Amino acid sequence: MSTLAKQIDTLAFDAKKAALSLQSIPVSKVNNALKTMAKLLKSETAMLQKENKKDLKAAKEKGLSSAMIDRLTLSDKAIESMVKGLKEVAALSSNVGVTYDERIRPNGLKIYKMRVPIGVVGIIYESRPNVTVDAAAICLKSQNAVLLRGGSEAFHSNMALGKLFTSALETAGLPKAAVQLIPSTDRSAVDMMLKKDQQIDLIIPRGGESLIRMVVENSRIPVIKHYKGVCHIYVSPKADINKAIPIVINAKVQRPGVCNAMETLLIDSKLPVKKRVQIINALIDNKVTLFGDSETMKLSSAIKKATEDDWYAEYLDLRLAVRTVNGIDEAIDHINTYSSHHTESIITESKQETAVFLQQVDSASVMVNASTRFADGGEYGMGCEIGISTDKLHSRGPMGIEDLTTYKWIVEGNGQIRS
Amino acid sequence: MSTLAKQIDTLAFDAKKAALSLQSIPVSKVNNALKTMAKLLKSETAMLQKENKKDLKAAKEKGLSSAMIDRLTLSDKAIESMVKGLKEVAALSSNVGVTYDERIRPNGLKIYKMRVPIGVVGIIYESRPNVTVDAAAICLKSQNAVLLRGGSEAFHSNMALGKLFTSALETAGLPKAAVQLIPSTDRSAVDMMLKKDQQIDLIIPRGGESLIRMVVENSRIPVIKHYKGVCHIYVSPKADINKAIPIVINAKVQRPGVCNAMETLLIDSKLPVKKRVQIINALIDNKVTLFGDSETMKLSSAIKKATEDDWYAEYLDLRLAVRTVNGIDEAIDHINTYSSHHTESIITESKQETAVFLQQVDSASVMVNASTRFADGGEYGMGCEIGISTDKLHSRGPMGIEDLTTYKWIVEGNGQIRS
Repeated sequence: MSTLAKQIDTLAFDAKKAALSLQSIPVSKVNNALKTMAKLLKSETAMLQKENKKDLKAAKEKGLSSAMIDRLTLSDKAIESMVKGLKEVAALSSNVGVTYDERIRPNGLKIYKMRVPIGVVGIIYESRPNVTVDAAAICLKSQNAVLLRGGSEAFHSNMALGKLFTSALETAGLPKAAVQLIPSTDRSAVDMMLKKDQQIDLIIPRGGESLIRMVVENSRIPVIKHYKGVCHIYVSPKADINKAIPIVINAKVQRPGVCNAMETLLIDSKLPVKKRVQIINALIDNKVTLFGDSETMKLSSAIKKATEDDWYAEYLDLRLAVRTVNGIDEAIDHINTYSSHHTESIITESKQETAVFLQQVDSASVMVNASTRFADGGEYGMGCEIGISTDKLHSRGPMGIEDLTTYKWIVEGNGQIRS
Repeated sequence: MSTLAKQIDTLAFDAKKAALSLQSIPVSKVNNALKTMAKLLKSETAMLQKENKKDLKAAKEKGLSSAMIDRLTLSDKAIESMVKGLKEVAALSSNVGVTYDERIRPNGLKIYKMRVPIGVVGIIYESRPNVTVDAAAICLKSQNAVLLRGGSEAFHSNMALGKLFTSALETAGLPKAAVQLIPSTDRSAVDMMLKKDQQIDLIIPRGGESLIRMVVENSRIPVIKHYKGVCHIYVSPKADINKAIPIVINAKVQRPGVCNAMETLLIDSKLPVKKRVQIINALIDNKVTLFGDSETMKLSSAIKKATEDDWYAEYLDLRLAVRTVNGIDEAIDHINTYSSHHTESIITESKQETAVFLQQVDSASVMVNASTRFADGGEYGMGCEIGISTDKLHSRGPMGIEDLTTYKWIVEGNGQIRS
């Protein structure tokens, strides 16, 4: 076994041990660890920024884009934001230990479920070092041990943050293996991690589609993920155009580079031409490049011809696919065929159309008269977000603290045997 | 693409289409389909038994054990039991469409979850043809489409049952692709099925450990499973021996070949020797062969020496591993190390010990003063069971109709945009 393999082995084993002990501690200890970590981020800012400079120097030498360097930088503001996040997570309530679904059986057995941590969560992510702190905080708050593998660009920053977490855990009297970082940028470390199905209970990959596909292909551990966000808005003939236009613009333009931005707009052919043109022109005024089917192209000479690929595209910029559909059924068919099942919204004043759309669209979040940009843990009132799932098992859509818990069945008897 | 590959493609595609339409049908239609199927099983008994004879003939030629042939036989009694099962599932309540977890956000958005079917469920199982009917009924009741791949030994029986399901679905006005069987005994059909992650949402394998490992190794679709059941009972010094002995005997002897039977008994060294001997002798009287550590071996000359392998063993017969432990912490450590995380029970009159055991044992079902044999969907009041999960995500322990559902987020707005 290689040195690295032995290291991963030890990390996974220690994480499992820490997870078992985290199951039965009071949440106040966790909150203390989070608050201590917040203090350490401030008192150790100089050390953090010194380590961060090593990453920044390497990034500049590698010629990373200024946007990427920006995301990598542990500025005072970035650190302040992590501090704020830690305090917010510490203040959230936890439902670990809560019991529910109780039933008394005819034989007298009392059976119920108890909410418990999942165990060991593995997070595999790219570049931004703030994910190290945010993800660890949410995992810890739900009383899970976490094994973090960040991007190689942020290696020194992440290791420094990990060191502070170790210190915060020790101060709070928690096992220091509750938060661990993979101390290697070697790609094979990820493969090794993905095989530790005896120790790691859940993998959450965060990053580009290729990272996530690699994780899914190689993991023997359950993965919760979203590959991409191809979100749709359908404007029905019964839409209020004064809601439709701001929502369409907001969903595409406010922050086009994120997964809950709209990527395809479906406009009903029964919406009066004048209103359809208004929507198209509003998009063009906002510098959106449009790719449409032939029916949509009639609305403006600025619309380019869409190919089949455009219906699947996650542009993540100011491009948008637009299709004219004949009725709500065609809109729903289009969505259920091409969507990434992240978030879809209908703009309509009809209750009947709303009911059909909400029921028949098979996506994690289905909206009416709202911007797809709202699909977010914070906006849903979770207080934090560990990721967004387009999977259907365990958790769907934005995932918060409760999504990092599971349950066990408790059976209380008085000597019952089965006949 | 081979003919088989094309067939699997079509089956998966049709299942997905059926699943989308099943989302929004009234559950009364599903119940009609189940009741029609029950009637067809009775009116078509002769046809079923004729097809079943083909399987039985082949099984006898292959020299299958009489136990296996027994499980394969569609006797009048076996058919009556399927009819009963269908009627019971039809009578169960369904929570598809139920909404919960509602919150109104400061911006006026109304956000809640709606319980929905998972979509397409793939079941991969061995020999017993009754699984075809039971599994299809539970999947259908929760408004999922199901793709079934049964054991090759039951091929003709399963295809005949599938034909009846098609007819029942058509009578009830449901898409006939809601229940489909893979019409091939070719092993490669399973591999093809496991790659259809765009159409199939969940795979449930039911059978021996090697089948399940093969499925996990090859699936790109989430799998819920249990490899095996290595269930423990810990007899504390504070146990009531009049509860301990009947429970220990029941857990090992009543039906040793099933996953919720006890495989390791942990006896506390502080339990008086006389009581420890009573337990051991009761097991020996019930023809149980014991494998013990050196401390336990002192209790009877009939106890053979256990090896490390015995602590991991799922015997599924009248063998039992027995270990003497020093205190509850050692018992919990042993369980969390060697258990398959299926079901464990403590026998004690101490509330404090009960609390520690229930909280710290990391298994799907944790019991006090009850036989592990109760870990079962029927016994838990679910009315049915699609399988038992030792995984931690989505569902844990016995799985019923609700475990075959998920949720989507519904967001109701009135023109809100994100700032």
